[in-house]
Amino acid sequence: MDERRFRESDLVRWIRGESPANDTVLVGIGDDAALVRNPSASTLITTDMLIEGVHFDLASASPREVGWKAMARNVSDIAAMGGRSTVAVAAAALPRGFAERDGQAIVRGLLDCADAFGVRLVGGDLAATPGPLVLTVTLLGDTGGRPPVLRSGARVGDALLVTGTLGGSLLGRHLRFTPRQAEGLLLAERYAPHAMIDISDGLARDLHHILEESRVGARLQADHLPISDDARRAAAASGRSALDHALGDGEDYELLFTLDPPVAARLLAEQPLDVPLTQIGIITASGTTLVLPDGTERPLDPTGWEHTA
Amino acid sequence: MDERRFRESDLVRWIRGESPANDTVLVGIGDDAALVRNPSASTLITTDMLIEGVHFDLASASPREVGWKAMARNVSDIAAMGGRSTVAVAAAALPRGFAERDGQAIVRGLLDCADAFGVRLVGGDLAATPGPLVLTVTLLGDTGGRPPVLRSGARVGDALLVTGTLGGSLLGRHLRFTPRQAEGLLLAERYAPHAMIDISDGLARDLHHILEESRVGARLQADHLPISDDARRAAAASGRSALDHALGDGEDYELLFTLDPPVAARLLAEQPLDVPLTQIGIITASGTTLVLPDGTERPLDPTGWEHTA
Repeated sequence: MDERRFRESDLVRWIRGESPANDTVLVGIGDDAALVRNPSASTLITTDMLIEGVHFDLASASPREVGWKAMARNVSDIAAMGGRSTVAVAAAALPRGFAERDGQAIVRGLLDCADAFGVRLVGGDLAATPGPLVLTVTLLGDTGGRPPVLRSGARVGDALLVTGTLGGSLLGRHLRFTPRQAEGLLLAERYAPHAMIDISDGLARDLHHILEESRVGARLQADHLPISDDARRAAAASGRSALDHALGDGEDYELLFTLDPPVAARLLAEQPLDVPLTQIGIITASGTTLVLPDGTERPLDPTGWEHTA
Repeated sequence: MDERRFRESDLVRWIRGESPANDTVLVGIGDDAALVRNPSASTLITTDMLIEGVHFDLASASPREVGWKAMARNVSDIAAMGGRSTVAVAAAALPRGFAERDGQAIVRGLLDCADAFGVRLVGGDLAATPGPLVLTVTLLGDTGGRPPVLRSGARVGDALLVTGTLGGSLLGRHLRFTPRQAEGLLLAERYAPHAMIDISDGLARDLHHILEESRVGARLQADHLPISDDARRAAAASGRSALDHALGDGEDYELLFTLDPPVAARLLAEQPLDVPLTQIGIITASGTTLVLPDGTERPLDPTGWEHTA
C-alpha cells in the first residue's frame, strides 16, 4: 500500500476526508469550486509556487516539510498585510512514479501548517509531471475590517523594526519556520504600523521593496541587527561575515515594519510578542545607508553590503 | 529586446502596468498580497495547474493560447457552479532560458481571457524552473447571493442536458475554447438547475461525477448526443466512432446539467443561449445506461462505451 504510486482519485478522496466542510466552508473539496463564507467585506489573496531543485531539494527536505513550507510562505505573506489566513487551495505536480505515501506526506505538511494557523484547505488540483515536483498554494486572508498594512506606507522619521533574528535560514530553518501571523495581527491591531513586509528575499532586498514603494530611504545600524546563531554558523562555513548573512540571506520570514517613533518606543518597552522585537534603523528621505560599528557609513544595495563596500 | 531571457522583476513590472487597481481591487499587484472587495457574502474559489507535456505542448500551442487555456479552465469551473469569475492570481514556472516575449505572451493570453470574462488579475508568482513550463491559476467567483449549483443535486426523473457539441476537442478547440460563463449564469438565474458540471474529463466521466455525488443513475440516448464536427474528424483519423469520441474525449468545456422536466421543456423551447442546448437523457435511480440507435441498451462506464460493449 505504502509503495503504491499515487492515483489522483485515491489521494483526492483521502484529502477530502481530512478536510471536511464546516460553517466557514459552505462547499468544500469535491465540486468544480469551493464556496467559503467571507469574514468581512474584503479578502486578501496571495499565491506562491515551490519548485523542486529551486526552492527545496528532496534530498534534504522531507515531503512533509515541503508541504509545511508551501503553506507557511503564504501565511507569512498574509501576516505581512496585517491579516489572518483563512482558506487555501493547493495544486501539485507530482513526479511520475511518486509514491502515494510521499504525496500524502506533502498534504499532511500542508494540513499541519493549515491547522496551526486556522486555515481550511478547500480545494486543489493534482497531476503527474515529467518534471520536478511543483506545489502552488493560494491563500485567502482577512484583516478584520482594518486597512491592510502596505509596503508603501513608510514615512520619513519612522522607526524601522524587525521581529526575531536574521540570517542563515538555509541551514534548515527555511523548511520549518513559524510564519509571524500572531505577531502581524497584534502589531496591526495595537501599534498601527505604517508599512510592513515579510523577509523572504533577505533583509536588504525586502527593505528595498518598502523604500521603493514608499519613495523614502533608510539608515540601518549594523550593530543593532539581531543576528541569528544560524547566521554565525553560516559565516563560519562561508567565510563571509555574520552581518552579511543577516543582511543578504533570504527566507527568514520575519516581519520588517515601520512605526511612528513614540509608538515604536512603547512597543519596544512592552515587548508584547513571543519573539524579540528590535529597532534596526530609521526611515530617511532618500538613499540607503548602513552605519558600521566603527561609525563609518556605507551605501547598502538590495543584495547586501560586502561587495559594495 | 525580444530575444531577452525573462527577468522576474521586468515581467512583474510589465504585468503590473497591464493590471491596475480599481474599485474592486483595493490593493493590486506589488505587495505581499492583494486585497479585493467581496461582491457578496460568500466566495467561490478554484485552482488549476497546466503542465507542459501533460496538458499542452509548446510545439502545437502558442504561449498566448496556453495563457488563455489556463484562465479559461478556471472560468469554466466557476461557471459550472452558476458563478461569475471575479479575481485571479497566477503562478508560473518558466523554463530556464525562456524568452521574455514568450513570458509576456502567456500573460497576454491570461489577460485576454480575464478581460473577456470580467476577471481582474491581482497577483502572482514567477520563477525559473529546470523542468517543463507549469502555470497555476487560482480564480475567485461569485454567485450573486444564489446558492451554488453542485454536482450532488441531481434527482431521479430530472432531464439531463448539455450545452454545445461534444468530442474531438484535441484537434485544437481545447486551446481556444469559450468557457460557458454567460450560459451558466443564465441557467442558474432563470432555470434553477439541480446539478451542473463542466465537461473537462469527457462526458461519460463527468456524468459519472454527477451520478456519484448525487447517488443516482442515468439513461442516455446515443442518437440525441450533439456530436461535434471535430468528433467526426477525430473518428475518421482514429477508426473509433464519433459517438465514442463524444462520450470519452475530454476538454469540451461544455456544461452538463439536470433540470425538472417541465423546466427543461421550457428551456428547450426558449433556447435562450447562443449555443445549442440538447437533452441527452434522464436521471434514473441507479446504473448508467446508453440506449443505442437500434434500441439496444448497454452499460456505460466512466471512460466511454466501446470497450465495455
